[in-house]
Amino acid sequence: MSNKEGILGVLGGMGPQATNTFYQRIIDRTQAESDQEHLRVLIWSDAKIPDRTAGILGGREEEVFQHLLADAKLLEKAGCTHLAIPCNTSHFFADRIQAELSIPLIHMPRETVKAIRAAGKKTVGILATDGTIRTGIYQKELEQAGLTAVTPPEDIQKTVMSIIYDEIKRGETGSREKFAGIDAFLREAGCDCAILGCTELSVYRTLHGLPPYYIDAMEVLAEQAILRCGKQLRNI
Amino acid sequence: MSNKEGILGVLGGMGPQATNTFYQRIIDRTQAESDQEHLRVLIWSDAKIPDRTAGILGGREEEVFQHLLADAKLLEKAGCTHLAIPCNTSHFFADRIQAELSIPLIHMPRETVKAIRAAGKKTVGILATDGTIRTGIYQKELEQAGLTAVTPPEDIQKTVMSIIYDEIKRGETGSREKFAGIDAFLREAGCDCAILGCTELSVYRTLHGLPPYYIDAMEVLAEQAILRCGKQLRNI
Repeated sequence: MSNKEGILGVLGGMGPQATNTFYQRIIDRTQAESDQEHLRVLIWSDAKIPDRTAGILGGREEEVFQHLLADAKLLEKAGCTHLAIPCNTSHFFADRIQAELSIPLIHMPRETVKAIRAAGKKTVGILATDGTIRTGIYQKELEQAGLTAVTPPEDIQKTVMSIIYDEIKRGETGSREKFAGIDAFLREAGCDCAILGCTELSVYRTLHGLPPYYIDAMEVLAEQAILRCGKQLRNI
Repeated sequence: MSNKEGILGVLGGMGPQATNTFYQRIIDRTQAESDQEHLRVLIWSDAKIPDRTAGILGGREEEVFQHLLADAKLLEKAGCTHLAIPCNTSHFFADRIQAELSIPLIHMPRETVKAIRAAGKKTVGILATDGTIRTGIYQKELEQAGLTAVTPPEDIQKTVMSIIYDEIKRGETGSREKFAGIDAFLREAGCDCAILGCTELSVYRTLHGLPPYYIDAMEVLAEQAILRCGKQLRNI
């Protein structure tokens, strides 16, 4: 084994399916032809983390933060060299968590916005939970990069939440009819691209296939995790 | 959270794809309607564990054992209450690992044979790596249960190994033509059922679909893990 290779810690369980999908992306995108050529990954799928949207919007931020921090420290203590959190809403706490760790947290929204800017896009739709939208995690990163953020109006946002909570989190595949309404809004609003800024929407993309117009934050995170831990990407 | 609920430790990475397929089974088979109703699972996907078949047959047993034991202890120390190893060949070391732990290791071959006996089957084919076959892990469990074990002749065994190593472990989907030859052998040999005693064959089953004639050891392990950690099974 190469000493240069990192051990990726995955703070997961938000939700379990998104965590599984994230690890699948890591496996699929790593250049490897035997077990031993894959990354070592420690995944703490802590399903008991309180709901992030409910926690942040319901004034229980500190409870969620302390739970996430304890989980991150478990991964650091176990020997992980890098940390990934495949949950966009949790990145509300990312800078605070990073401040308490000695290993780097790969910041999913920040890396996603970097990738969008590098691709020359200007007007960017954000599809995410109420928690992610209202805390402005993506808007802030987009503004700092000089890009224009577009968030859905209330009725479209309700549809996004319904796909995430009523469908994907319950183990369903998600409704194409609902998604078509979201797509129409984004095109009419003049967006050059849209961020899939919720890991359940990444699961939706995997299940249904979506065009490159949709930038999957989880895919960006997987790519960055593989590269930073010292492995090469496989193109698929 | 219920205090009765366990935390499942998964000693994985043998291979990474089998580990993620195992976690997908855990998610799919757990009765849960929200993130928080799922099991907490700590997955140590340690891709650097030496190849088990090469290690056992090549006289490097102790190296493999020490690596597995260190990984199991990491999971125990981190707070896991139960241990699952989604790799059949590694169960050559299961009793020795169990002797060094204070948490229960859910023994995949033993649980699989229990399920087969409960279903009233008598003559049982074993599809597994050379390492699993030659160490007699499944033959021993079947004999102790009063059942007849059937192992493939050399040419069929080579086909089994080719599906595992040349196809699934390299990220391919596995050849239906090759599997058809294996199936014909089992039927002609008078087997009532056959054990998929290698997690790469469980991956093959997931990708292609196989009839109930094939008893998937990984599925049995997932069911036992969910139940022993205090959750209910969802029928799918």
